[in-house]
Amino acid sequence: MHFAEPLALQSGASIRAYALSYETYGTLNADRSNAVLVCHALNASHHVAGVYEGQPNSAGWWDNMIGPGKPLDTDRFFVIGVNNLGSCFGSTGPMHTNPDTGEIYGADFPVVTVEDWVNAQARLLDALGIDALAAVMGGSLGGMQALSWTLQYPERVRHAVVIASAPNLTAENIAFNEVARRAIVTDPEFHGGHFYRHNVIPQRGLRIARMIGHITYLSDDVMNEKFGRQLKAPTLPEGALAPSGGPSALDASLRPYLYTTQDVEFQIESYLRYQGDKFSEYFDANTYLLITRALDYFDPARAFNGNLSQALARATCKFLLVSFSTDWRFSPKRSREMVRALLDNNRNLSYAEIDAPHGHDAFLLDDARYTGVVRSYFDSVAKELSAARPPEGARTAVRSTEVSQ
Amino acid sequence: MHFAEPLALQSGASIRAYALSYETYGTLNADRSNAVLVCHALNASHHVAGVYEGQPNSAGWWDNMIGPGKPLDTDRFFVIGVNNLGSCFGSTGPMHTNPDTGEIYGADFPVVTVEDWVNAQARLLDALGIDALAAVMGGSLGGMQALSWTLQYPERVRHAVVIASAPNLTAENIAFNEVARRAIVTDPEFHGGHFYRHNVIPQRGLRIARMIGHITYLSDDVMNEKFGRQLKAPTLPEGALAPSGGPSALDASLRPYLYTTQDVEFQIESYLRYQGDKFSEYFDANTYLLITRALDYFDPARAFNGNLSQALARATCKFLLVSFSTDWRFSPKRSREMVRALLDNNRNLSYAEIDAPHGHDAFLLDDARYTGVVRSYFDSVAKELSAARPPEGARTAVRSTEVSQ
Repeated sequence: MHFAEPLALQSGASIRAYALSYETYGTLNADRSNAVLVCHALNASHHVAGVYEGQPNSAGWWDNMIGPGKPLDTDRFFVIGVNNLGSCFGSTGPMHTNPDTGEIYGADFPVVTVEDWVNAQARLLDALGIDALAAVMGGSLGGMQALSWTLQYPERVRHAVVIASAPNLTAENIAFNEVARRAIVTDPEFHGGHFYRHNVIPQRGLRIARMIGHITYLSDDVMNEKFGRQLKAPTLPEGALAPSGGPSALDASLRPYLYTTQDVEFQIESYLRYQGDKFSEYFDANTYLLITRALDYFDPARAFNGNLSQALARATCKFLLVSFSTDWRFSPKRSREMVRALLDNNRNLSYAEIDAPHGHDAFLLDDARYTGVVRSYFDSVAKELSAARPPEGARTAVRSTEVSQ
Repeated sequence: MHFAEPLALQSGASIRAYALSYETYGTLNADRSNAVLVCHALNASHHVAGVYEGQPNSAGWWDNMIGPGKPLDTDRFFVIGVNNLGSCFGSTGPMHTNPDTGEIYGADFPVVTVEDWVNAQARLLDALGIDALAAVMGGSLGGMQALSWTLQYPERVRHAVVIASAPNLTAENIAFNEVARRAIVTDPEFHGGHFYRHNVIPQRGLRIARMIGHITYLSDDVMNEKFGRQLKAPTLPEGALAPSGGPSALDASLRPYLYTTQDVEFQIESYLRYQGDKFSEYFDANTYLLITRALDYFDPARAFNGNLSQALARATCKFLLVSFSTDWRFSPKRSREMVRALLDNNRNLSYAEIDAPHGHDAFLLDDARYTGVVRSYFDSVAKELSAARPPEGARTAVRSTEVSQ
């Protein structure tokens, strides 16, 4: 979707002639009341669900959660995924041409915030003719966008689903972001953010950034369970057979140490290097800086002297919040802060703290209790919708007996 | 101290014509029974206590713990600090010349392990004429050396003080080490570990490594308390006065965001960059690789199929173990594993879990409960010593009534 009117940004800058990539799933109903906006986190995109024709490995990043018959059921809801401004999956971003200069933006792409993204998303809804969302939903940084929707456009949101998120970053969160950014910015191939001109990519920095990120997405427990102190299996020469008798040459836990400082010794190292390599091949370095900064800056309580209850007073919708016991990046404590602030304002909310071993990553994974909570929440959203609509023809309307408190 | 005889290393390699830098404090008693060896962690050295003449800022890294009248009292004990092989504070390391080739070692310095360090330290004690230690003591990686002493030379250790340590690294610990190493190794100025020849230093990588390290040394709580989301105070132009009326220009929490991705915005960023810069000016990159690898490799239970109780059966001395509630790098859980394994062997031990906010760093900081525990433990060690010695002249010997269980 192309937008001709400039978008004023929180920083005071503005961006013009931008485009947003988006996808929709399901059907918008006649009264345009069943739309659900799904906001993405750091490295995801508008492709939240489904598989592209002929590309069996192209499942959307939240495909386990969203689709026909899934917890967010696209047979009932019209789901919208949108790639945020400054990202690198189709929407206008640092690798595009700045219409004001005719040059590639690079590091000159303006700093965008969660609030800016929400404003841009609101314009997309305008263009789609959607006045109000049945729900806005996101995990992590996506949850921050969902929360911000309830504050910036309270009249346009009926439900907000805020998963594994936080009302702002802690010093430690910012610290991890900063180290990742420094790794990118100090990569000699970053060229001050104008590496496109040099036909290079700061892959070293991106690799390090992604490795750091991955550590913080996982819990210590799940890392120990998945990798522990396992050594990397030795690569046998082609055609060689594992020796018979005695421990298999592939049973890495029993092989001697290699005594190396630069080569891979432990399985966890191999995993992290692989993740770093993969990421550095598809993700834009300037986008990494922009999106981590949006995370750092988000802090709705800042304008209220740190008082989150006052900050959230503007929100009028109903909420579902979910957190995960082993998430140390956005811990349950941070979700409870939001719950408390909403309760201070007598808001209608559901909160689930899911006992899951997977750390922050849990919000993307299948867990029966987690998906059950989301499914039943959206069931109630659907009931509200059908209760609000007049019965259609001969169909017996299922009326909700639930009453908003 | 120079050593002429080669030292066989765990890797199968050996190192010859090496030297160890060491310092001693206090006086070795007549029966040479009051020696305490203090082992250092990643970036420390043999300079554990005291101040060099004319250098008021040269306090040893554990000067709050060790000295006359301090918890480890150098009026009673003969304390030895030794810089480990492969480190960069005087002992033979990667920046020295390999006598076999006449070239600087660089990345060719052999991989050394905790066990190798202990063997080298034992030779130093031989040279000093010390058969047995009253105690061996260390925090973090230093605690691993203390533990390893009790396994490699059980007959030469009467007490081991193992603080904020672990019986091995978790996958997450290894992961953080690996990211730090990758940052160094992929710095173009690392030159495969032979940067000395090029007259450069991989400072970018060292900075990133140190920033990552620092995050893991602190607790989330103490970071929030010290830095929180505070913005960096703006630098006023020279001679400028803070504006009067309205918030002071130096009250950083109230200034607007700068909206920058590459410059410092938050106080925590400024702190981390400063720590990284400082470290990159004095620490050797190859030493960083070697020492983090020694951490990764330490795992006394490995030879016993992961059974720590069996591994620690060789230890015969008494133990003091200390951990800190907010230390997530070497959490209390890891100390409890060692406690349990020692109890399985009916060893005499004291264990203190100190409720301290400072994370892993707590082992280097003043905390009355922590220093009190160490002081009283060394009091009992001193009592044992005097009980074991015949009363001297007219002096009334204070005899310990404590009985080893």
